[in-house]
Amino acid sequence: MEKMELRGIQDIYPDEFAWCYGCGRKNDAGHQFRTNWQGDNTVTIYTPLPEHTAIPGFVYGGVIASLIDCHGTGSASLALHRKNGHEIGDGAEPPRFVTASLKVDFIKPTPQAVALKAVGTIHEIHPKKWKVDTEVYAGDTQCARGEVIAVVMPSTFLVKE
Amino acid sequence: MEKMELRGIQDIYPDEFAWCYGCGRKNDAGHQFRTNWQGDNTVTIYTPLPEHTAIPGFVYGGVIASLIDCHGTGSASLALHRKNGHEIGDGAEPPRFVTASLKVDFIKPTPQAVALKAVGTIHEIHPKKWKVDTEVYAGDTQCARGEVIAVVMPSTFLVKE
Repeated sequence: MEKMELRGIQDIYPDEFAWCYGCGRKNDAGHQFRTNWQGDNTVTIYTPLPEHTAIPGFVYGGVIASLIDCHGTGSASLALHRKNGHEIGDGAEPPRFVTASLKVDFIKPTPQAVALKAVGTIHEIHPKKWKVDTEVYAGDTQCARGEVIAVVMPSTFLVKE
Repeated sequence: MEKMELRGIQDIYPDEFAWCYGCGRKNDAGHQFRTNWQGDNTVTIYTPLPEHTAIPGFVYGGVIASLIDCHGTGSASLALHRKNGHEIGDGAEPPRFVTASLKVDFIKPTPQAVALKAVGTIHEIHPKKWKVDTEVYAGDTQCARGEVIAVVMPSTFLVKE
């Protein structure tokens, strides 16, 4: 851990929470989204793969939904971590969230072969429940808008193996 | 086409619309969802892959969102195709839909290594706009609930290559 570049909150999730297909650093088959602060907003940048197509030339909506989902839980983790007095890299373990609900409005067809930028605005509902509004851009064009309700992961969620 | 088993509406989408990462029969890297009638409802059955994990033991929400997304557009296509007097296998080309909005409520953690069954109830808003309510089950347990607003694909959507 010490030698790796910390690009996002997902880089400091505990190992047992680092297998997510969307944002787990240990899931080599997954998207490996990384979410970090940009001013008071949060940002996740991701370039979909060629196979992530809806119809040729445009990105599959399920991948955009996935981006919004993990961007939402990552943003909530960043926010509660900061509220708890911590920042990425200070050695503290961040809180881990799960998605209670996900909503995506597809505004325009999203072109392929372009880096997508998810920009999040975070609202605290209460300390264990956060709402993250996300705008997804391809270049300067907003292609999608999302809302995630993220809740602190219940302790019962972890399967002991 | 004549010799293949027609398991769902996606099997008769025109070739240029058969590349979807979620439900395209030509996308070998994708999920290859198939949606068909079951009485007045529609059904898509899919077993997530081992890498489609949220945390070990549970399915990634983005894959569940993808299932609901393509199940929604496939269900709308089935419904409008039937309204137009056609059924899968009669040789007519079905209408192709895109997703205007997608909403998912995650009710319970979804166990891995279990076939998921998406069951859709279709509502016509107008002939070019349909709402599909979907319940996702793992065995007998409902794990998620979704809503897709699907609209007939605009003719401008197809990129001429």
